[in-house]
Amino acid sequence: MKKLLLPVLLLSPILLLAQSKPAHDLVKYVNPMIGTAKMGHTYPGATVPFGMVQLSPDTDTIPYAVDGKYNKDVYKYCAGYQYDDPTIVGFSHTHFSGTGHSDLGDFLIAPTTGKLQLNPGTEDKPESGYRSAFSHANEKAEPAYYKVKLDDHNILAELTATNRVGMHQYTFPKSDEAHIILDLMSGIYNYDGKNTWTFVRVENDTLITGYRQTNGWARTRTVYFAMAFNKPFHQYGNKNYEEEQVYKGFWRKFDQTKNFPEFAGKKLRAYFDFKTEEGEKIKIKFALSPVSTAGALANMRAEIPHWDFERVKQEGQANWNKELNKVVVDASKDNLTNFYTAMYHSFLGPTTYMDVDGKYRGLDMNVHQAKDFTNYTSFSLWDTYRALHPLFNILQPARNADMVKSMLAHYDQSVHNMLPVWSHHANENWCMIGYHAVPVIADAVIKGNAGFDVNRALEACVTTARNNYYDGLNYYMEMDYVPEDKNGSSVSKTLEYAYDDWCIAQMAKKLNRQDIYEEFMKRASNYKNVYDSKSGYMRPKLSDGSWKKEFDPLDTHGQGFIEGNSWNYSLYVPHDPAEMIKMMGGKQRFAQHLDSLFTMDLPDKYFANTEDISRDGIIGNYVHGNEPSHHVAYLYNWTNEPWKTQERTRMVLKAMYKPTVDGLGGNDDFGQMSAWYIFSSLGFYPVAPGSDHYAIGSPAVKSANINLENGKTFNIEVKNQKDKNVYVQKIELNGKSIDRSYITHSEIMNGGKITFYMGSKPNKKLMAVAE
Amino acid sequence: MKKLLLPVLLLSPILLLAQSKPAHDLVKYVNPMIGTAKMGHTYPGATVPFGMVQLSPDTDTIPYAVDGKYNKDVYKYCAGYQYDDPTIVGFSHTHFSGTGHSDLGDFLIAPTTGKLQLNPGTEDKPESGYRSAFSHANEKAEPAYYKVKLDDHNILAELTATNRVGMHQYTFPKSDEAHIILDLMSGIYNYDGKNTWTFVRVENDTLITGYRQTNGWARTRTVYFAMAFNKPFHQYGNKNYEEEQVYKGFWRKFDQTKNFPEFAGKKLRAYFDFKTEEGEKIKIKFALSPVSTAGALANMRAEIPHWDFERVKQEGQANWNKELNKVVVDASKDNLTNFYTAMYHSFLGPTTYMDVDGKYRGLDMNVHQAKDFTNYTSFSLWDTYRALHPLFNILQPARNADMVKSMLAHYDQSVHNMLPVWSHHANENWCMIGYHAVPVIADAVIKGNAGFDVNRALEACVTTARNNYYDGLNYYMEMDYVPEDKNGSSVSKTLEYAYDDWCIAQMAKKLNRQDIYEEFMKRASNYKNVYDSKSGYMRPKLSDGSWKKEFDPLDTHGQGFIEGNSWNYSLYVPHDPAEMIKMMGGKQRFAQHLDSLFTMDLPDKYFANTEDISRDGIIGNYVHGNEPSHHVAYLYNWTNEPWKTQERTRMVLKAMYKPTVDGLGGNDDFGQMSAWYIFSSLGFYPVAPGSDHYAIGSPAVKSANINLENGKTFNIEVKNQKDKNVYVQKIELNGKSIDRSYITHSEIMNGGKITFYMGSKPNKKLMAVAE
Repeated sequence: MKKLLLPVLLLSPILLLAQSKPAHDLVKYVNPMIGTAKMGHTYPGATVPFGMVQLSPDTDTIPYAVDGKYNKDVYKYCAGYQYDDPTIVGFSHTHFSGTGHSDLGDFLIAPTTGKLQLNPGTEDKPESGYRSAFSHANEKAEPAYYKVKLDDHNILAELTATNRVGMHQYTFPKSDEAHIILDLMSGIYNYDGKNTWTFVRVENDTLITGYRQTNGWARTRTVYFAMAFNKPFHQYGNKNYEEEQVYKGFWRKFDQTKNFPEFAGKKLRAYFDFKTEEGEKIKIKFALSPVSTAGALANMRAEIPHWDFERVKQEGQANWNKELNKVVVDASKDNLTNFYTAMYHSFLGPTTYMDVDGKYRGLDMNVHQAKDFTNYTSFSLWDTYRALHPLFNILQPARNADMVKSMLAHYDQSVHNMLPVWSHHANENWCMIGYHAVPVIADAVIKGNAGFDVNRALEACVTTARNNYYDGLNYYMEMDYVPEDKNGSSVSKTLEYAYDDWCIAQMAKKLNRQDIYEEFMKRASNYKNVYDSKSGYMRPKLSDGSWKKEFDPLDTHGQGFIEGNSWNYSLYVPHDPAEMIKMMGGKQRFAQHLDSLFTMDLPDKYFANTEDISRDGIIGNYVHGNEPSHHVAYLYNWTNEPWKTQERTRMVLKAMYKPTVDGLGGNDDFGQMSAWYIFSSLGFYPVAPGSDHYAIGSPAVKSANINLENGKTFNIEVKNQKDKNVYVQKIELNGKSIDRSYITHSEIMNGGKITFYMGSKPNKKLMAVAE
Repeated sequence: MKKLLLPVLLLSPILLLAQSKPAHDLVKYVNPMIGTAKMGHTYPGATVPFGMVQLSPDTDTIPYAVDGKYNKDVYKYCAGYQYDDPTIVGFSHTHFSGTGHSDLGDFLIAPTTGKLQLNPGTEDKPESGYRSAFSHANEKAEPAYYKVKLDDHNILAELTATNRVGMHQYTFPKSDEAHIILDLMSGIYNYDGKNTWTFVRVENDTLITGYRQTNGWARTRTVYFAMAFNKPFHQYGNKNYEEEQVYKGFWRKFDQTKNFPEFAGKKLRAYFDFKTEEGEKIKIKFALSPVSTAGALANMRAEIPHWDFERVKQEGQANWNKELNKVVVDASKDNLTNFYTAMYHSFLGPTTYMDVDGKYRGLDMNVHQAKDFTNYTSFSLWDTYRALHPLFNILQPARNADMVKSMLAHYDQSVHNMLPVWSHHANENWCMIGYHAVPVIADAVIKGNAGFDVNRALEACVTTARNNYYDGLNYYMEMDYVPEDKNGSSVSKTLEYAYDDWCIAQMAKKLNRQDIYEEFMKRASNYKNVYDSKSGYMRPKLSDGSWKKEFDPLDTHGQGFIEGNSWNYSLYVPHDPAEMIKMMGGKQRFAQHLDSLFTMDLPDKYFANTEDISRDGIIGNYVHGNEPSHHVAYLYNWTNEPWKTQERTRMVLKAMYKPTVDGLGGNDDFGQMSAWYIFSSLGFYPVAPGSDHYAIGSPAVKSANINLENGKTFNIEVKNQKDKNVYVQKIELNGKSIDRSYITHSEIMNGGKITFYMGSKPNKKLMAVAE
């Protein structure tokens, strides 16, 4: 008995708490419901930090329109849940957090009572299917825990999770007709034909295994599962919804619909029947694997070798507390909620993508063994290179180094010899533009967080940047800009390539590769080639060298940009703001130009086609809901009016982040919006990842302790913090006054203290730089 | 350099020949074209004994009718090749030999010149596509070698193979437009929707990897490949034939049709372009794996680490010679051809199903490691339990033991807890009836060829035989017969279950499991429950105990039988002929009954619906083209007229096996028809596998040496062998005259000599048993 008890003791929540020493219970400040209404695209379900399983309710399953453009309705369901919906279809095991496109929603479980109904039914008539009406009054979402009452079935549903295993606990009424439905057809961004195959085995009366293969955002994706019940079902079955099964053959000798333990096809729903006593709990452990059903089963046995739901929940929350305690802030109640919910959202991804034994599926569809690193997936890099990965370099340096290793493994497996663009689940989905794995890698290298082979990393960046068939790169390399008549969104691409190239140059410099440094510094100045000095904007150029004639800098569509108009994108030279400002007419004129961005009255017609965000995500013509402007409020630091950075960032913090279900001004984009919040409310921001500078803004907290992985603490103290005191009067770093507009990475990582003195009026002399 | 040379020397054909000491060049007697016309369903292409790759020409790709019934046209193409066809579509890498249903045809390669055409074209207008006209005059098929001139393209195509790698050698004319087409849509028993997914990566300018997933006879099948060229292609591309691709997403940023290295979908054809000099040879190594593309590549590198086509061919033929030398016969020229072609066809399957590192895909779709055995697949057990596996127990005991281990691994992986019925490529296809892995295992156990865990094997057999949802077994176990109104083909099932059960009893007896012995001996007598003494035939019984009223013992369809009429099937009690004969009226009456089988004039109407064979496969009403009667000619041995066994078997040998392309009287059924030929022409036959007796017939050879794996030799000498001398006058075993109608397995395996003295008139006293 002693031998059996030992591992249990080692994993007990008390000991975990003792190990991680969470001085503060910060889980209580997190509200996973924030962002579940409107355009936040977050999910309220149960997950652990960077967990493979995201077990969360799906409130509808709207099919994706197959014409290639997304249907705005389905767009609301990127994370499966919309706060305003009256019904819950069921609980599925994989969800992206905050993304602007989607996939996943694998393996939806729905508990029901009464007559078996295998179709989900409709929102207006939930009784026509297995879904259920619910009320937010009976709903609760916490880190690693979610519960809701399913009114139609009188079932209390509770969810929790470990890294690779979701745990369900359904409290049933007394019923001779209690069902657990496993819907293999359901999914997010689903459509007819998305399932290329599903395969299920009922191994015994408590264990099911199988997998789902889809052709979606990930073109060739397979997820394996193992599902265990705490009590044997007394019968089971399935229905194949394919109109005409092409080939049945000798399988006809069986009735495959009932108590037949092996089914496969493209459109399957299965059910498992129980008889329950009043208040009886049917529990499910549902493990995932990117490798095999054997891998899923091993994950289940390793991570939850028992049936104690409460223990899994407590361990999950202890896990969250440990991560949240990396920054301990004092702030107003609302800001505490905003801050820790932002921390929570920042730590939802990239997600673990390997089994407990280190095996994972690679981009080449082969199974690989991760050696000395955790393999991560779901890199929303066009978003997250800006602030999320820089945040990780402070708060999650070990994980960030592993993420870089994961990207280098992707590179090794890529038949294109490219680093990830937007990758998930062993697939490159090519979403958005640029090659923004490069700034993530460069930022880690420059900041000394490079627990990987830096020369190999540089080679991967260079090879990626020289790919001659990727998205206009051939033109860019030949002509020093992307011509709009050859490749659309050409200005955005030119600008982002130029920044990425600067990142390569910074790495090359640090690694003493002068040749590469020179090649890429030259490319880094290519932003100048799309600046039209006549209009004063970045503007699409054609292959004959002329500017595109029709041009509206306020319009987002068809203008040579993506998820941003020229007005916003024209400010995108994060690696050389000083030169950009010079090019655009000097500091004074540029500051006025920025002012107008925040204050202009954008005509209605432009809202309609502002991509990807609601009106809530826009201030004037400043689009915070999309990423290209995330550094813009900090650009005042390069003018003579840095106090306007302080003013604007505080305004954005207030306007764009609210402790309400609709509190996010746009898609959270896998933590990028949240990372902006964390940085900005701490008072600094990484304008150009790949540099070790953070631009100083205006802290919104009263104080913060950043508890670093190296054991040191960086303390932020804010004197005279008040809502109206948005202006920094004085800054002391380790007791000494500083007058620069930035702090460096090493100043943070060495530990120490920064003190901001705040006031209601700008100190116009502070950080002002001579013209 | 020496280090590099060493492994090459070790594998050289000369050394291989030296190792295997093939005293005789027997490859020259094999004609792989035999059975390629009419219903033989054999393929002429290149393969090695029990090889994973069967690289062979496909002469047409007729789609399978999806109404669930096969289209007679497609039925001709079970092995991809029909001798009378004027065109060759291309060369694919997997083929069943002689089966009565089909699948496979994976990865069709077609070399062409001139304008690129990606569609196969039609037989009447081959110039409309990539296929080519050809002439048999320019065609040659040998073991491990096939060549043909493709007239439309002026290309000489040559094929050879190792176990897991097909090698192509195409001699091109001078051309600026030389193409190699890789058709991923093509397949055997193909239909729209059969491909569930295909995935291809162009790793570099000489290497391609990928896989094909199909939903066919095997419901959930994946084959992986790696394909290497001996010379870089200068460009490549592909076309996706799916009418509407559901989701394209950000892949739109690429032109995926040309020089784009990653494509995936359901309907893909790819091409690779070369410029060739006159007579230039483009060579391809094409490796398969059941596990992964990495596995395929490792297989390629291990098995063909060079580009010497001739060497691969020579090694393959040396490999064949080694196997063929296991029986060295002296016989007429035609019989030599028949005999060694039969040996060749007998050694085509089951096929290797694991990578060089021992990894293979299991029935649970997980990857398993074979420990101390070679994993085999494609068990056409309803056919091959009868004579092929018994033949292996003499000629291939090591391989047969591994085949049993493969079946036990299947059992371990089966969610049904069943041994294979008809399994291939990690799938159970459930074809035909019975559980005939049991007689294969029992035969090995009884004959002492049990290099596996016999108790585990017995448990697997018993568990399989007690499955209560398999094909009427529940009724059989409850009622001691399968009632026709509950489960069709009920008489065939009852009879075959009874025989299989006797096999279990024999194993149990040998393993001292009296309980199991008694249980299954009781079941073994269930054949009596479907014998209608009034009509004198086995007859379908209904669940109320009455006989089915409408009954025609000559009809094959709807009568309670499968692939046989009652007349033939009524003789199916191989485990107890004596009791059966008693039941059917005694020896004399039974002998007359048998006579009428071979001599009756079957009315035309019965031919039309005799399943699965042509008129050539029938003598009177004796159906040799299907298996249920394969033991029947030997049943005279249990009457007072054993000389009629001698007469009939010689007649069947002559009528059903001819050294011509249409020389097989029915599907070869993965070697079962050929194994019948080998046994019968050697003069004995295993009427009841699971017994160690072989019934004596009439040898058709002049002499034979069976070179056993144990190092011993069993010599068969036939005195006075002539076509008309079909009657055995006297038999001497090791110099002593014997008068029994059988020899035993140990008499063969101990080595020694049997001498048959032949004559043109029966010796009616020999082997005659008292009434």
